Amino acid sequence: MMNRVFAIMVFIGVPISVIGAIFHWPSVIMFIIYCLTIIALASFMGRATESLAIVAGPRIGGLLNATFGNAVELIISIFSIQAGLNEVVLASLTGSVLGNLLLVAGMAFLIGGIKFKRQKFNVYDARHNSGLLIFAVIVAFVIPEVFSMNLNLTNTVHLSVGIAIILILLYLAALFFKLVTHRGIYQDPSVVDDEEEEVPEWKKGKAIGILFLSTVAVAYISENLVHTFESVARSFGWSELFIGIVIVAIVGNAAEHASAILMAYKNKMDVAVEIAFGSTLQISMFVAPVLVILSLFFSHPMPLVFTMPELVAMVTAVLLSIILANDGETNWFEGATLLAAYIIMGIGFYLL
Amino acid sequence: MMNRVFAIMVFIGVPISVIGAIFHWPSVIMFIIYCLTIIALASFMGRATESLAIVAGPRIGGLLNATFGNAVELIISIFSIQAGLNEVVLASLTGSVLGNLLLVAGMAFLIGGIKFKRQKFNVYDARHNSGLLIFAVIVAFVIPEVFSMNLNLTNTVHLSVGIAIILILLYLAALFFKLVTHRGIYQDPSVVDDEEEEVPEWKKGKAIGILFLSTVAVAYISENLVHTFESVARSFGWSELFIGIVIVAIVGNAAEHASAILMAYKNKMDVAVEIAFGSTLQISMFVAPVLVILSLFFSHPMPLVFTMPELVAMVTAVLLSIILANDGETNWFEGATLLAAYIIMGIGFYLL
Amino acid sequence: MMNRVFAIMVFIGVPISVIGAIFHWPSVIMFIIYCLTIIALASFMGRATESLAIVAGPRIGGLLNATFGNAVELIISIFSIQAGLNEVVLASLTGSVLGNLLLVAGMAFLIGGIKFKRQKFNVYDARHNSGLLIFAVIVAFVIPEVFSMNLNLTNTVHLSVGIAIILILLYLAALFFKLVTHRGIYQDPSVVDDEEEEVPEWKKGKAIGILFLSTVAVAYISENLVHTFESVARSFGWSELFIGIVIVAIVGNAAEHASAILMAYKNKMDVAVEIAFGSTLQISMFVAPVLVILSLFFSHPMPLVFTMPELVAMVTAVLLSIILANDGETNWFEGATLLAAYIIMGIGFYLL
Repeated sequence: MMNRVFAIMVFIGVPISVIGAIFHWPSVIMFIIYCLTIIALASFMGRATESLAIVAGPRIGGLLNATFGNAVELIISIFSIQAGLNEVVLASLTGSVLGNLLLVAGMAFLIGGIKFKRQKFNVYDARHNSGLLIFAVIVAFVIPEVFSMNLNLTNTVHLSVGIAIILILLYLAALFFKLVTHRGIYQDPSVVDDEEEEVPEWKKGKAIGILFLSTVAVAYISENLVHTFESVARSFGWSELFIGIVIVAIVGNAAEHASAILMAYKNKMDVAVEIAFGSTLQISMFVAPVLVILSLFFSHPMPLVFTMPELVAMVTAVLLSIILANDGETNWFEGATLLAAYIIMGIGFYLL
Repeated sequence: MMNRVFAIMVFIGVPISVIGAIFHWPSVIMFIIYCLTIIALASFMGRATESLAIVAGPRIGGLLNATFGNAVELIISIFSIQAGLNEVVLASLTGSVLGNLLLVAGMAFLIGGIKFKRQKFNVYDARHNSGLLIFAVIVAFVIPEVFSMNLNLTNTVHLSVGIAIILILLYLAALFFKLVTHRGIYQDPSVVDDEEEEVPEWKKGKAIGILFLSTVAVAYISENLVHTFESVARSFGWSELFIGIVIVAIVGNAAEHASAILMAYKNKMDVAVEIAFGSTLQISMFVAPVLVILSLFFSHPMPLVFTMPELVAMVTAVLLSIILANDGETNWFEGATLLAAYIIMGIGFYLL
Repeated sequence: MMNRVFAIMVFIGVPISVIGAIFHWPSVIMFIIYCLTIIALASFMGRATESLAIVAGPRIGGLLNATFGNAVELIISIFSIQAGLNEVVLASLTGSVLGNLLLVAGMAFLIGGIKFKRQKFNVYDARHNSGLLIFAVIVAFVIPEVFSMNLNLTNTVHLSVGIAIILILLYLAALFFKLVTHRGIYQDPSVVDDEEEEVPEWKKGKAIGILFLSTVAVAYISENLVHTFESVARSFGWSELFIGIVIVAIVGNAAEHASAILMAYKNKMDVAVEIAFGSTLQISMFVAPVLVILSLFFSHPMPLVFTMPELVAMVTAVLLSIILANDGETNWFEGATLLAAYIIMGIGFYLL
């Protein structure tokens, strides 16, 4: 049902986006159309990636997820960097981290927890993710923030690029660890892996075609979306920061939101947690450093230096989600706690 | 025996407090009399609340504890806000958090640990409390501190009130979780709950009467106590900050101190930990936000913005107590570690 | 084999050091000779201490390790304080903490993890160390940093000395806990303690003699080493900070590096972790506070106030290593994560 709605949204949204962009329709209306169309396209990209992952096996599937899972954010961000909107890019990275750790995980724990008293997931995966979250957000994001106070811009960029390379290398090492050297090592042997027999929704050729077309459409619409931010901010009395952290993050992560909640509702907490935490790690260990490196080819290099409120929000979100998830068990109250933290931060960024 | 001493202190202390206040006896002497009388009255309030909790069952008992357990601090603080002493209020909230997490828990772990090699308590409760401590202190207290640096006073108050409402709602949700939806879910079934058969010390009518009279007396004395701070600070060379953080916190939490240590000595670590951590959570998730909201009705609204030393002391105290308590086991050395942290912070606040 | 190389290094390095110092050979060459000779002498001191520990039993052995294990750092630091180089001392303490937590533990986890899929160690020891790391670095180092912003120098020194005394007392209490009151309490009974039958490499008299001579030699060379820092910094374009954090830390901890990696390779993870974490705790709870107190007898007292980059690097390193080690299990990827964090910090301090 939801899939049909998304299909209709794509077939109406894409042509309207093109026409509206050509004839310069009002920014606020176009902003809404662009956002809805991107959400619908994201769901197609998600389904195509999943189909390919089933066909190609979980190893290549992991890489595909890594590459396409956050493709929308990556594309929007590249156009924002080109437009010189580095602050919006860092804000939307922050928004993705907060959105996945607090909003997506919070909703999944809450909805799942209303149906089931206690939900369990693999405690080893939880700890593996906790370590990487501390590494990415608390080491790799905090260090340039603090050190840059005593560095000139050139050295701040040097430090950022160095950290970006290390983040990407460690992200690849983590894939190698999970998919090659320690594949299945931490799996509970009593759990039968019923995902092996899954049938892909689309055949390989169709999936690749849809993935390609959706990516092109998202790229086109994203470029236009970025240019509406200024007018939208003026019209609604929002700061560009708030747009980046809340609106772009929700648009860019709509697909993950939906699937994580669905998985929690089916008591497949391993998958729900992997979507929320895995997506956060993709953003912080792959998308963010790739953007830092790509920014060198544009006029304004983007060092990995967030604003203090962004950084503190991410650090506290990581500490909260780690302490809640580290025992491999969730309930509705843990979900409510995460959502409460998200609302607090949302109010804070709205008032900034 | 202790109860008789407290009774004598009340019957001597209350009249002397009234007479001394009317005839303007020297502030320093009255400060000491007020403090001792409040400690004695707090023990009566504690016993009355406990008796009512046994009569009314654990569910209502939880609410009663939430409402009256920190009533003394709440009353002292309201008079301080009325007197425009917002800094003293925030300092005494800090003092309660540090006192409960480090001093009360530290003494309980140390004294209990000298008698027993290893003491255990429910690990699920420990994790539940850890999550809430991170939420309250590290998310809800840190966010307004950092964001307020870029906000004007009006927006800082808006943010504080928003956070206060969310803290109270999540605190009520936590009671609902523990007393309704997940009551007994995380209990070790082999532990026989012998508290069901407890006999209340006082009958319902007597308990309510004592609770009412003690509260009135505490309210009266607290108002006078607040007005002695300035002279006492001058006489002893203490800062008002030190009075708020160390003296008010010890006076306001005297009852909890005594019971937690007694419970640890009887190897009832579940109760001892619940007093220390539960009281911290009441202070940070109920008393503090209620005071923020009440302050709107006085001339000086009190935003939830601590000084940097206060905030850092609370954050580090939370991290330390979580890492020590999260495994559901204590020993004397963990108690010594908590006390050592308390002493370090006490020296720091004394020198400020 | 390695032992023979070190012996040759000592018999060549010590006379050359004396001659070079007398005839004022070029600083850069002498810096390298001093460093290599100290590394070789440190290995002799390590072996002498180990032999004495076997002869004297594990209780006295613990104290010997505490006293001589970080003797080289202590000696270098005392000469640096005498030369007024307080910043270099604090930097090299930082370097020791980062080096042990990230470099030594990282290499041990990585090398051990390449040979063994999963390596386990005593989870109680891990938690005990985690609590102390939070206490030492996050409470005792952070508090003076934040409070000193509102304190004059005299009170900052008072606070530092108070904290130093508490750190030393708690360190002694930790030894008492591990060696007396809770000795073997947290030991897995199925593990046969095969270390009881170890044969010391050297007899008691020889060990004491070597220990004494090596200490005298290290003291002499260290004094000269300190005076080369300025020229070396100029020659290589390094900051004195970078020399303190990276070079002095690696020289001073060379012996620990080698043994921790060897132990991990033999799958004796308990010993490897004890070396890395135990050495960090010695530095932060014994060496650092002793230096603070000793500094009172020189012209420039050294308060326990690190630079912000140093403090943040240590705090994030502690959080990362705790989250990775707290489950009592390691693998190659956890080692890679620690090393990645070390490289990030190394780049940061190089650019400062």
